[in-house]
Amino acid sequence: MATKHKNAIYAQSGGVTSVINATASGLFTAHKNSENAGIIYAGINGIKGILEENLVDTSSYDADFLAKLKHTPGGFFGSSRYKLPDFDADPTPYERLFEVFAAYDIGYFFYNGGNDSADTCLKIGLAAEQLGYDLQAIHLPKTVDNDLPITDFCPGFGSVAKYIAVTARETALDIASMYATSTKVFVLEVMGRNAGWIAASAGLAKTQNSPAPQIILLPEVPFNRENFITKVQQTIADDGYAVVVASEGIKYSDGTFLSESSQKDAFGHGQLGGVAPKLAAIISEDTGLKNHWAVADYMQRSARHLASQIDVDAAFNSGVAGYEFAREGKTQVMPALIRENTLFGIPNWRIEEASLDKIANVEKKMPLNFISDDDMGITQEAIAYLQPLIEGEAYPPYTNGMPDYLDEKLVAVTKKLPEFKS
Amino acid sequence: MATKHKNAIYAQSGGVTSVINATASGLFTAHKNSENAGIIYAGINGIKGILEENLVDTSSYDADFLAKLKHTPGGFFGSSRYKLPDFDADPTPYERLFEVFAAYDIGYFFYNGGNDSADTCLKIGLAAEQLGYDLQAIHLPKTVDNDLPITDFCPGFGSVAKYIAVTARETALDIASMYATSTKVFVLEVMGRNAGWIAASAGLAKTQNSPAPQIILLPEVPFNRENFITKVQQTIADDGYAVVVASEGIKYSDGTFLSESSQKDAFGHGQLGGVAPKLAAIISEDTGLKNHWAVADYMQRSARHLASQIDVDAAFNSGVAGYEFAREGKTQVMPALIRENTLFGIPNWRIEEASLDKIANVEKKMPLNFISDDDMGITQEAIAYLQPLIEGEAYPPYTNGMPDYLDEKLVAVTKKLPEFKS
Repeated sequence: MATKHKNAIYAQSGGVTSVINATASGLFTAHKNSENAGIIYAGINGIKGILEENLVDTSSYDADFLAKLKHTPGGFFGSSRYKLPDFDADPTPYERLFEVFAAYDIGYFFYNGGNDSADTCLKIGLAAEQLGYDLQAIHLPKTVDNDLPITDFCPGFGSVAKYIAVTARETALDIASMYATSTKVFVLEVMGRNAGWIAASAGLAKTQNSPAPQIILLPEVPFNRENFITKVQQTIADDGYAVVVASEGIKYSDGTFLSESSQKDAFGHGQLGGVAPKLAAIISEDTGLKNHWAVADYMQRSARHLASQIDVDAAFNSGVAGYEFAREGKTQVMPALIRENTLFGIPNWRIEEASLDKIANVEKKMPLNFISDDDMGITQEAIAYLQPLIEGEAYPPYTNGMPDYLDEKLVAVTKKLPEFKS
Repeated sequence: MATKHKNAIYAQSGGVTSVINATASGLFTAHKNSENAGIIYAGINGIKGILEENLVDTSSYDADFLAKLKHTPGGFFGSSRYKLPDFDADPTPYERLFEVFAAYDIGYFFYNGGNDSADTCLKIGLAAEQLGYDLQAIHLPKTVDNDLPITDFCPGFGSVAKYIAVTARETALDIASMYATSTKVFVLEVMGRNAGWIAASAGLAKTQNSPAPQIILLPEVPFNRENFITKVQQTIADDGYAVVVASEGIKYSDGTFLSESSQKDAFGHGQLGGVAPKLAAIISEDTGLKNHWAVADYMQRSARHLASQIDVDAAFNSGVAGYEFAREGKTQVMPALIRENTLFGIPNWRIEEASLDKIANVEKKMPLNFISDDDMGITQEAIAYLQPLIEGEAYPPYTNGMPDYLDEKLVAVTKKLPEFKS
């Protein structure tokens, strides 16, 4: 009989998505189907749970549970915005991590997050080498922001793109009904601090007879009030109404955000929000046009009820691939999605390993050829990229009119180690 | 051969819903299936279209078209917020309406709207009597606000209730993942100027292990900053995080809205919005708790992608019943939904006529026994009322990842009458 593999540990990191649990489900499923697999643990509230030895033993999760996990939004194990210091500045949390890893015989570390988390995963992998601890550190991609390099798209993005495209289409039909005697401009604020991928996806809402959203404001383009108002007025003249989709991260040319709150997250990024009311105020002031505005915030990244099937598959398969990478002895890598076109012109994706040192802290912005000449829309190239990501409706099952999401309390294992405050 | 019935006209009024077109579809279907039916016209942009003789002849709409109309959100013919003056103050628009009705041989007038529109429909019915014009004026109910009296619920409300309940559940799962190291409070602003039905429906999101939304702020209850903050802090102590769902119309005890913009609609109501950022600012000021906020605005009332099957059926059947009322010679009535429980305890609704003089300008608020003792939640009685309204998922068909909504331009009939500026 072959030797049992070492145990594994999984943690969720950063802002969650509607499909991050699908990645966990893929990982656990691959683990379950592997010969001589050890135990796979999960950190409660991300890496904070590992540091504090708040761990869940996932051994009891059966196929039914994993199917339900696959369609449940949010981070089932809890996420965290905890940022590790540099190893050289303060090795204490690293020493603690490896103390916990040793106590649970952990050989595989799976970290499910975005840019900052890829950096954390790389740091842990490198620290393991320095400390002589045998560890495969695998990053599993997750971010609605779609800003990880190398991979064609990030699991989580396809679903938010679908939700925002459908929402833009639906709200466009609403205002198209109202503008003759009432509201002329609708402003929808979406996420996207530095990259306009989510706002761009609203461009998929246009149809033969529905020109909305006519204005898409991207963080890649400096905001110019005069140009914006001119475009609003031109749109009203042409179509009678205007739908504006704005990234939370749009900035003036001097680099200040249109609306920056005083709150900062654990990574030191200012917490954004309130761009829609700001734009609405500008429109009212400069044109007097009656307007409405919405801010999608958490709604967009938790809307599992309208997930894209392509995205759910990508999330699940990333978990599977990550597990396989670990079993193959790889470390400091991430499964990246590589787009290929089939004979019939329909895109398909294969998964390849990408080295974390090429991913950590690199932010993929929209290519210039995705942005239209007037800087307030997207091009056919962008549509060709975005459209395949929203294909298919991965509806969750419903009971009594509500989605049947996982509703279990996490039960932590009994602690073996002295307490540690992270 | 029986005489052909007189022609009919249909118009949409006020804020649209995700199922107002389902009512139109029901009306047109009943008309199509009736013997010796005349032509049914629709006003482009509501009653404004009738006054200006901008009319669509719907005769060419076949079963496929009507099926697509049934699942398309927004008001396909355009709505309006045009308010008729009192007949005695200014009979001019009434005279014009009857001039148009006479030119098109109109005997049935169907007006699809909420409170204010029921009043308009009644005024037109009464004016017809005064002017000796033979007209059946039928009001077809539509409002996300659920504030029409007599009827058990208003078509449009069931779908927004489902959308908000699902959204509250999904965003609760999101913040439950984040609160350990980041956001502790999430505020979701929903519609509801004077009645808290939509906010109350978020209460359906609670599950055995998910207490959110823990705080629901209703316009029926005066807002008290101290009580609110105490409840937020208690919730954080108990659960670690808090989800607050707030009606746009919450007021201080002196009657001023928490956030009132300077814009007013055609009915003289102040246009509300911005309660969520206001509450977020209060939370930040008084507690320093990190928070996020969202404003659903048009998103909630156009979200046909998550319509309730019960609601779609109610909307469609109201259109059918309205047509039958007209054919039976009734006037100044509205089809009202009367709830009955079946032998198996499952609610069912029959449709009865309700007299418009009992409906016009009457606003149905939440009953006191629907509001919990702490004034910031709902009771079991509320849940028993609300839950059946969100049953069933009436998904639209999708093409290329997007809902396959009607995408046709309206073509107006050639005008017969002199111009009229409404």
